Amino acid sequence: MGNLILAEALAGVLAAELPITQSLGIGVAEAGTDAVVLTLPLLANRNHKGTVFAGSLNAVATLAGWSRLWVELQERTIDAHAVIQDATIRYLEPATSDVRARCAGPDPALLDRAVAMLQRKGRARVALDVEVHDLSGQLVATLAGRYVVHRRQG
Amino acid sequence: MGNLILAEALAGVLAAELPITQSLGIGVAEAGTDAVVLTLPLLANRNHKGTVFAGSLNAVATLAGWSRLWVELQERTIDAHAVIQDATIRYLEPATSDVRARCAGPDPALLDRAVAMLQRKGRARVALDVEVHDLSGQLVATLAGRYVVHRRQG
Repeated sequence: MGNLILAEALAGVLAAELPITQSLGIGVAEAGTDAVVLTLPLLANRNHKGTVFAGSLNAVATLAGWSRLWVELQERTIDAHAVIQDATIRYLEPATSDVRARCAGPDPALLDRAVAMLQRKGRARVALDVEVHDLSGQLVATLAGRYVVHRRQG
Repeated sequence: MGNLILAEALAGVLAAELPITQSLGIGVAEAGTDAVVLTLPLLANRNHKGTVFAGSLNAVATLAGWSRLWVELQERTIDAHAVIQDATIRYLEPATSDVRARCAGPDPALLDRAVAMLQRKGRARVALDVEVHDLSGQLVATLAGRYVVHRRQG
């Protein structure tokens, strides 16, 4: 699929499957196997200091990783779904603008190995790193998440 | 302050300082130096599988830790504010009901040491553990967070 079609499809999935993403204002800026970039607006997520709430930074980062796996499964036409198992998030700087959460995905060799495991065992673990930048390009948070992908029963 | 007054004051602070908590439906069930318990409804935060979105579990857990520090600072009449620095969250089970995030706070000796550091240096680090249970009492997530408390300039 083309990346524009993927981005539109992903935005539809987030809106339909996770209504709270609409209250958070999460959008899809890019969706491809090179990277997924989600956006989060300051306005809906700001605290009284005018910076983005830590919980909202974590939410958009968690979803950027989930979305990167969603794109991979679409592109490989594998009927499976991902859930996050655990994550470590570091809040590096206050975010004073809208932010973008970017997940490039794992090393291709690791991804191929996870897909082979998924095909063979019905589930696989994937570790993903996500970076959250503000609009000036400042890195404001990093998330290291581990996701489990489950193949759906045919 | 009494715990009921603290709970009402905390609910007011969350609503005023973090408007997104209203979209998430976060409420205050208990607020005291023994523990803070925040609530999060399934309905506003559910995904298409009918379980609570991981990002919402993290948000209520992050705020339970923050709120426990807020209560401590109120009770000690210290003019300071807390920010989260980093956190590790484990998602143990899908949450199929409303949830409660409980933070009992650190060991009293560690807390006293942190307060002494805050008074002397103007800032202190506090590590907090939060447990999130569903309404059946099942533990669905744990968060280990590190917060930094900054004294406000007089």
